[in-house]
Amino acid sequence: AEEDFNGNLADPLGATGLIERRYSRSDSVPKALVRWMQRLLGSEGEEDFESVSLISSPVRASSAAQNRRFLNFGMERRRRNNVYDDSDDESRPNVHNTNDEVVFADPASGSRSRLGVNERGGGGEDEEMQNDPLPPMFSKYGDFHTIDWQRDLARDRLRHKSIEGRSKDFPFGLLKAAWDAGAGWICVLLVGLAAGATAGVIDVAARWMSDLKDGVCADRFWLDREHCCWSSNDTIYKDSDCSAWTTWPEMFNYYSHSPFYYLVELFFFVAWAVGMSTLAVLLVKVFAPYACGSGIPEIKCILSGFIIRGYLGKWTFLIKSVGLILASASGLSLGKEGPMVHLACCIGNIISYLFPKYGQNEAKKREILSASAAAGVSVAFGAPIGGVMFSLEEASYYFPQKTMWRSFFCALVAGIVLRFLNPFGSDQTSLFHVDYMVKWTFIELIPFGLLGVFGGLVGALFTVLNLRWCRVRKENKLVGGNPIYEVVIITLFTAAISYFNPYLHKSGTAVIKQLFDRCGPEDYMVELCEYRNADGNVYFGAAFMSVFWQLLIALIMKFVFTVFTFGIKIPCGLFVPSLVMGSLAGRLLAMLIEGFLRSVQDDSTTGVFSCQIGKDCMMPGLYAMVGAAAVLGGMTRMTVSLVVIMFELTGSLEFIVPTMVAVMFAKWVGDATHKQGMYEAHIELNGYPFLDNKGEYPYSTTAYQVMRPSADRSEGSKELAVIVQDAMTLGEIEQLMRDTQYNGFPVVVSRESMYLVGYVTRRELQLALHAARQNQAYVVTASMVYFTAPGQSSVIQPSHGDEGPSSSAPAPLRLRRIIDLAPMTVTDQMPMETIIDMFRKLGLRQLLVTRSGKVLGIITKKDILHFMRNASDLESITNPNFK
Amino acid sequence: AEEDFNGNLADPLGATGLIERRYSRSDSVPKALVRWMQRLLGSEGEEDFESVSLISSPVRASSAAQNRRFLNFGMERRRRNNVYDDSDDESRPNVHNTNDEVVFADPASGSRSRLGVNERGGGGEDEEMQNDPLPPMFSKYGDFHTIDWQRDLARDRLRHKSIEGRSKDFPFGLLKAAWDAGAGWICVLLVGLAAGATAGVIDVAARWMSDLKDGVCADRFWLDREHCCWSSNDTIYKDSDCSAWTTWPEMFNYYSHSPFYYLVELFFFVAWAVGMSTLAVLLVKVFAPYACGSGIPEIKCILSGFIIRGYLGKWTFLIKSVGLILASASGLSLGKEGPMVHLACCIGNIISYLFPKYGQNEAKKREILSASAAAGVSVAFGAPIGGVMFSLEEASYYFPQKTMWRSFFCALVAGIVLRFLNPFGSDQTSLFHVDYMVKWTFIELIPFGLLGVFGGLVGALFTVLNLRWCRVRKENKLVGGNPIYEVVIITLFTAAISYFNPYLHKSGTAVIKQLFDRCGPEDYMVELCEYRNADGNVYFGAAFMSVFWQLLIALIMKFVFTVFTFGIKIPCGLFVPSLVMGSLAGRLLAMLIEGFLRSVQDDSTTGVFSCQIGKDCMMPGLYAMVGAAAVLGGMTRMTVSLVVIMFELTGSLEFIVPTMVAVMFAKWVGDATHKQGMYEAHIELNGYPFLDNKGEYPYSTTAYQVMRPSADRSEGSKELAVIVQDAMTLGEIEQLMRDTQYNGFPVVVSRESMYLVGYVTRRELQLALHAARQNQAYVVTASMVYFTAPGQSSVIQPSHGDEGPSSSAPAPLRLRRIIDLAPMTVTDQMPMETIIDMFRKLGLRQLLVTRSGKVLGIITKKDILHFMRNASDLESITNPNFK
Repeated sequence: AEEDFNGNLADPLGATGLIERRYSRSDSVPKALVRWMQRLLGSEGEEDFESVSLISSPVRASSAAQNRRFLNFGMERRRRNNVYDDSDDESRPNVHNTNDEVVFADPASGSRSRLGVNERGGGGEDEEMQNDPLPPMFSKYGDFHTIDWQRDLARDRLRHKSIEGRSKDFPFGLLKAAWDAGAGWICVLLVGLAAGATAGVIDVAARWMSDLKDGVCADRFWLDREHCCWSSNDTIYKDSDCSAWTTWPEMFNYYSHSPFYYLVELFFFVAWAVGMSTLAVLLVKVFAPYACGSGIPEIKCILSGFIIRGYLGKWTFLIKSVGLILASASGLSLGKEGPMVHLACCIGNIISYLFPKYGQNEAKKREILSASAAAGVSVAFGAPIGGVMFSLEEASYYFPQKTMWRSFFCALVAGIVLRFLNPFGSDQTSLFHVDYMVKWTFIELIPFGLLGVFGGLVGALFTVLNLRWCRVRKENKLVGGNPIYEVVIITLFTAAISYFNPYLHKSGTAVIKQLFDRCGPEDYMVELCEYRNADGNVYFGAAFMSVFWQLLIALIMKFVFTVFTFGIKIPCGLFVPSLVMGSLAGRLLAMLIEGFLRSVQDDSTTGVFSCQIGKDCMMPGLYAMVGAAAVLGGMTRMTVSLVVIMFELTGSLEFIVPTMVAVMFAKWVGDATHKQGMYEAHIELNGYPFLDNKGEYPYSTTAYQVMRPSADRSEGSKELAVIVQDAMTLGEIEQLMRDTQYNGFPVVVSRESMYLVGYVTRRELQLALHAARQNQAYVVTASMVYFTAPGQSSVIQPSHGDEGPSSSAPAPLRLRRIIDLAPMTVTDQMPMETIIDMFRKLGLRQLLVTRSGKVLGIITKKDILHFMRNASDLESITNPNFK
Repeated sequence: AEEDFNGNLADPLGATGLIERRYSRSDSVPKALVRWMQRLLGSEGEEDFESVSLISSPVRASSAAQNRRFLNFGMERRRRNNVYDDSDDESRPNVHNTNDEVVFADPASGSRSRLGVNERGGGGEDEEMQNDPLPPMFSKYGDFHTIDWQRDLARDRLRHKSIEGRSKDFPFGLLKAAWDAGAGWICVLLVGLAAGATAGVIDVAARWMSDLKDGVCADRFWLDREHCCWSSNDTIYKDSDCSAWTTWPEMFNYYSHSPFYYLVELFFFVAWAVGMSTLAVLLVKVFAPYACGSGIPEIKCILSGFIIRGYLGKWTFLIKSVGLILASASGLSLGKEGPMVHLACCIGNIISYLFPKYGQNEAKKREILSASAAAGVSVAFGAPIGGVMFSLEEASYYFPQKTMWRSFFCALVAGIVLRFLNPFGSDQTSLFHVDYMVKWTFIELIPFGLLGVFGGLVGALFTVLNLRWCRVRKENKLVGGNPIYEVVIITLFTAAISYFNPYLHKSGTAVIKQLFDRCGPEDYMVELCEYRNADGNVYFGAAFMSVFWQLLIALIMKFVFTVFTFGIKIPCGLFVPSLVMGSLAGRLLAMLIEGFLRSVQDDSTTGVFSCQIGKDCMMPGLYAMVGAAAVLGGMTRMTVSLVVIMFELTGSLEFIVPTMVAVMFAKWVGDATHKQGMYEAHIELNGYPFLDNKGEYPYSTTAYQVMRPSADRSEGSKELAVIVQDAMTLGEIEQLMRDTQYNGFPVVVSRESMYLVGYVTRRELQLALHAARQNQAYVVTASMVYFTAPGQSSVIQPSHGDEGPSSSAPAPLRLRRIIDLAPMTVTDQMPMETIIDMFRKLGLRQLLVTRSGKVLGIITKKDILHFMRNASDLESITNPNFK
């Protein structure tokens, strides 16, 4: 399990593999083109952000040595400015490229660090390793690192304090303070505006391109089918078809509905679909490998404090927007909603750089990102409250009250902008507005509960199958190595089969809209309502059976398509396919019940079921709605947010109870069948260090059993690597850093007593030592390094001053300022539940374990994750001291 | 400031004073009655809960010695059962009585402890003191104590583990596990059902009694006016008046509307009002002093982990229900909504005792209480989602995902039950359903923003004035000592003045309903719509001015009444008066704008404002709605939950944006004017140890400056009181406990090294020593007490076993099992922000401060509160080591 975990961490996205392969394989036909475009785009990036030059220049530099010089220069410069800049997030393809080259240029340490994560038995190592002797100090945190919430928030408080202190200076200080106070609101306002506008553009474009598969508007090619028919003032208008809309066969003057007509139509349908999806996958592969997938698992990790450099950059944003339009237009079984959340977070990240308060502080930035996620759901479903609940329940990790209120504002602004743009062309507040006249009865809670059970089972089955396929993709060279062919093949199958089924042919949202609707008197010639009379009666004849089979086939195929589609290398969400599956199932159940009621009514004349089927008996649309909620609930295991989203989608408070019953059963059955929802499963699949803030873990282990170095020395574990506060030379410390890979070291009074003084991170130590070597000529390998306050050390002080060169012994180097004097500590008897709680709630990176004041070991976030995965093994070890 | 704080803590509710005065004063006319009734009720209580006998028996015992015997017996018995029982919450008047007598019987320690809280310079003291040499072990926590979340949750995990371990035993183990898993859901289901039913009963009863002030239904006296008129099939029906409804003058056969008629009507109106409110205050005073007020500040404290024994007991529930009916019927300016939340929490508390998992674990019980609070808001406003948001944003402290989902379920069940009972007699989903035909325009956001500013100012002004009056009530003997007279006088004034104004005369909800409504063509003879024509035109004449002045007077008087009413000793909420004020203000603003538009339209013929006033120009009802949200927002500083509640109240998603703008401005302006909302202000007024989980505190102090004993010894502070793990005799420890008041002691390796071993609470130490003295005959004063593991101590072990009597030295007592080996520790350089964060998020009671492994001091929750109040003073002390 451990190696699996490590292997995953080394290739956390599946996308990294894509890039590395790109550079290692020699089939470099498009390589020159790619290089050229990247240079073009890289130089464009430089104009935006000061620091991009530091990052993109090494791309052009050829040797590792040259790289290092660049990096050192960058580091020095950064230190002089005394700010840590994160703005290199912006140009992901370059950064990634850079990192790869730097790493591979130094294979001795580089390749090892890529693979050698989590060597059991080491102490004090963090999630990830620092391999370069001098790390590129682009930012405070490295790629795939975890942020330290407490430190970042403390940094922000200091910043806030300094601004507040100067707010007395009348014009500028006050203005600056006011700007600082308002920055958060302005930032989320901008995010909301941008997210709304983006969603509007994507909706309109995707609609137009989706209709392009069927035909084109004769006189105004830029209109989609609905607007084409509207503008043509065509009264012969059925099922949104009209004479102004020209299908592809008609384009070539085939008007007779012969088999050939349909063959041409099918050809164009499939060809457009394959073309669009191929373009999408090429764009993703070449420009922004992070633009694939739904993005929500990664967003969850990022919001929990993980750093994935470039995941929210502007390249990802651009490519994902275009790719999303293409992908959703291609008719593949995927949704726009998950990627929309990712896009909104990209916007949040990009806009946060306009506000140094947020852009330069990873913890604060996550407040903006939480609001952005809410805005993303808000524009995806037209559900601002649901968006906030989603951000709170599903996405966010650190969600103070202030953030909630801002998220609400952001979500609302985004929703208003989208409604103002009105891409759906409707005047309704809600996307799938329902207006059922029949109320639901309490007895109907039984079928609603059944739908919930179905949703839970489908969700669990889907998760298992999809995960299995994703593993095949990861492990099998043939499948995993050819993402483009995979997309082409899946699109081919999807399009060819979808063409023949009306519920697969249409776009997901259109199908949902139709299935949610009641069959009014005006709809009785529409295929779904064909079995219903204009006066509301139901014919249980051929039309009924035909609709039933069509729905059933659509449901099964949708499920199969989605299993294979979710995870391919184009932007693809899960929400809409789930909703479609659920509404198909709901409608099917409603039809079954209608049939059953009919047979009961036929048999008896008691009038138990005296209602008129099709008129006042039940609403098949409501069943579709409940089913949709159930399947989505089974997939994602969302609860409150899902109910709120469903109610905002349909605009009706009446049906909260049915939705809730279904979601509740879906959650219970789903959890009982397969513990994880889709997002958690994909997080684990990709090996992200995500500490779930939901479950409660009934373990009974203590810190002593989990810490490194492990308590029983049987595994051949090393001693805890510590730094003694006043007894180590520069050379010894450098040797220690060479020998170990740990991200930080406890500082102790002496190696014998092991009493804790503080904690120093590898990065700061490296920086400080390097700076001392460069700038202070008298610092040599034999110099003592003191972490004590002046006069505090037990060692006899040399008589000369700190800075001057010494006569006999080399001058000491004083580094007290870099050590963290307030590391978090726990005693070795602390139960792991409390420790997990501390990690989750306080956002820690590591904890030091002490006993009677002596440092015994260290627990990092990765140890926690490792422990949680293998908890069942550890349960057997009972600690006699545990109470 | 410190003494003020202490003084408040000693009398945290104002209600305690009420009781104590009752027993200390000698005007014992109703004393015998009260005693008799209490005995009656006390014995009734015994049948319900096993442990009540332990509590209520001392009431009847006369001497303190006898009390002690009872208590000891109770303690022993409890220890044998090995469960801590909290069920004595149920009979508050008795418990309180008991405590008082016990405390006053032992003045030497008792009275001192009541007053001597927070003696500056002591170390290791908790929020409250233990004074009795042997504390009554009714429960794990004392009254006005803070719970230890981590410990309680750990206890629950252990319990859960043991049940899970036995789930293999087929029939019963499995059943028990299933029951345990389902208990939470069943519990919240029952709470929801009970809360819904209670709300229904209260609504119906309050309505009937409120109408009783005006008259009575002639043939069916048990019907309120509306139902009376419905059932009479009376077609002459205007403004819900009809011939079947008999006013009081009509009862005495005065039918002519002469001045005498009105005088009689006024007399009955005032007399009924005074009678009802007097009955309410008497009930509260005699039976359940905790039943007064809104209860939300206390609920907030309880949910944050504070214990107020009996605050959620069945007596409070009963008396508050009846008192609430009387108080809201009396026409005082108060609402039912806050008390409804309190009542729902009482239900949650009472029902949780049916489930030992929740009833016997204070931390787990708070999950049920959070759900109950949501149910309370749900039934108060018919807003289940708003209820969850309220519980999340405003009330709750510890709110895991699971609780949110359960809260939602609970709120929904309660809402359904209430709708099923249908006390409002309407078929609408929402309480104040609106159906405006006119949409709002963006320009209207300006007046909405103005309403927000008004709301913020009113809220701040109200808070300041009400607080000042509450202080007068606390300090002035005349005002504070006569709560009954105060209620009578306020009711007299309120009723006499309200009689003459139609908007004060009616019940709050009726006024809100009317003000939110549009004036339809059918309403034009109703006084509010009199100035509007049937065809929608507006007459700006006498009718307009009359309505305007009536609304203005109502607004001003409502404000004045509410300032004096909120805080009197009857159940009274703040929501409805705020909503009424806000909707009056909104309507007034709408009328002003209508007048302004009219004058603009008169002057010019440009047709800039071409809309027809009264028809399609603007909706005064919408302004009322927005104003209501603004004032409530200014009062309580709620944000998301308020917007959600407003939208569920009105059933319209259309108006989220106006509401949000108003609430936003109200919050900003309110916070800028007076930092605290009403609830926070009342929490501070009452001196509860509430650690707000909202704000961020930009301090820069370290643990070293806050801990006790304080770092600079100039204040004459004592040494830190510690227990040495293997060098103290029983007598020394007993002496230490007699000398100090602290709630717990750090256990250290030796007094010289001060290396930390663990932490032991006073309570457990007392229990263990007492048990040892009783049961182990060889334990004498000179016995050594070892907290070490066997064989670990540095002291040479005596050769004999642990239990047997010794030959030379007395046998030692081993107490390792009672010490907490995993106390939370921080280093002395830890910034206070992080420490506050730890207290809030982990629910700590105390933190030990260490430096290089040595214990330096202790920080308790009270130190944190004290620090936060005086932070500005400490800010000046800058620590050079702080980074």
